[in-house]
Amino acid sequence: MQVRLHKQLEFLLEIDRLKEVMRQSYICGGLRKENSSEHSWHLAVMALVLAENAPDAVDIMRVVKMALVHDLVEIDAGDTFCYDDVGNAGKAGREALAAERIFGLLPDDQKSEFQGLWREFEARKTPEACFAAALDRLMPLLHNYYSGGKTWQEHGVPAAKVLDRNRHIEDGSPELWALAKSLIEDAVDKGFLKE
Amino acid sequence: MQVRLHKQLEFLLEIDRLKEVMRQSYICGGLRKENSSEHSWHLAVMALVLAENAPDAVDIMRVVKMALVHDLVEIDAGDTFCYDDVGNAGKAGREALAAERIFGLLPDDQKSEFQGLWREFEARKTPEACFAAALDRLMPLLHNYYSGGKTWQEHGVPAAKVLDRNRHIEDGSPELWALAKSLIEDAVDKGFLKE
Repeated sequence: MQVRLHKQLEFLLEIDRLKEVMRQSYICGGLRKENSSEHSWHLAVMALVLAENAPDAVDIMRVVKMALVHDLVEIDAGDTFCYDDVGNAGKAGREALAAERIFGLLPDDQKSEFQGLWREFEARKTPEACFAAALDRLMPLLHNYYSGGKTWQEHGVPAAKVLDRNRHIEDGSPELWALAKSLIEDAVDKGFLKE
Repeated sequence: MQVRLHKQLEFLLEIDRLKEVMRQSYICGGLRKENSSEHSWHLAVMALVLAENAPDAVDIMRVVKMALVHDLVEIDAGDTFCYDDVGNAGKAGREALAAERIFGLLPDDQKSEFQGLWREFEARKTPEACFAAALDRLMPLLHNYYSGGKTWQEHGVPAAKVLDRNRHIEDGSPELWALAKSLIEDAVDKGFLKE
């Protein structure tokens, strides 16, 4: 087999392990938590469906690509719960090492492209990265809202912290930030998110 | 909330159920079978990584979109194992009804776009659909090969049937069909696929 194709298959087999990285979010039935590969798929579809809420110049297929690869570093670095302040402290270093190893399985040109997409997502400076990051925050908020606040309650997260942690949705899409705020307020009113 | 956004969210919440549709393929560790949302994610990344094996004119982002939505009908129709001749007999009708209901949750313009992508994938007439379908066959073959033929053995599938069922990979990509054939031959040589 050619070396290039061999590297590509090695990468595709390695990333299968994202199916074993568990997140804190529940799937909608509330029966079990979801894994990061399921989440990445859901986010990519969300980007297509909610594309009209992105700023005009956004290249939505670039957002889809980011959604597909944004969590691959978790294969080595694990999923860090967004309200885990201690875990988040060492996150950047762990993830940079993981990116180097995992994207490094690919041929050089593809390593550079995929690692670049991941770095762009993390840096949240381009409109594409801001929109992808907004979706990445909105999705667990939707899951939480429609499962009666299960994850918020498990971890005792209050509304102020949810608002604060999700505020950057506004940088990606003011429309989706308006939606997020209304869901948070409604969750407080309904009593499944504490004030 | 605007009617349009409400419909889009209903769709996004409904498709969460794809995470509960189980396939016959094992994840690479062989510990459990995978579900269709994990598979759809893996296929979308595969389309990006193996894009250079598609015919020149192929719009790879269209292939990625197809990969993301190609299995949504299974939410209602279930996953039909590709070697299940009885199950495959009624598959088209079950899936058409499912597509009507599930894509029908979206606003009309998006229903038409997504259902169109799904129909295009199923019809395997465009180069994009042929390439997406080739990947959709190659992925379980890789999983099977790298797990020592676990699914083939469970269902007693012989090499001739595997070759026959996967032959249309050639329509999507002669290069990937050469790869598939060499994996099948090697699986027979290694004794985990019976002749």
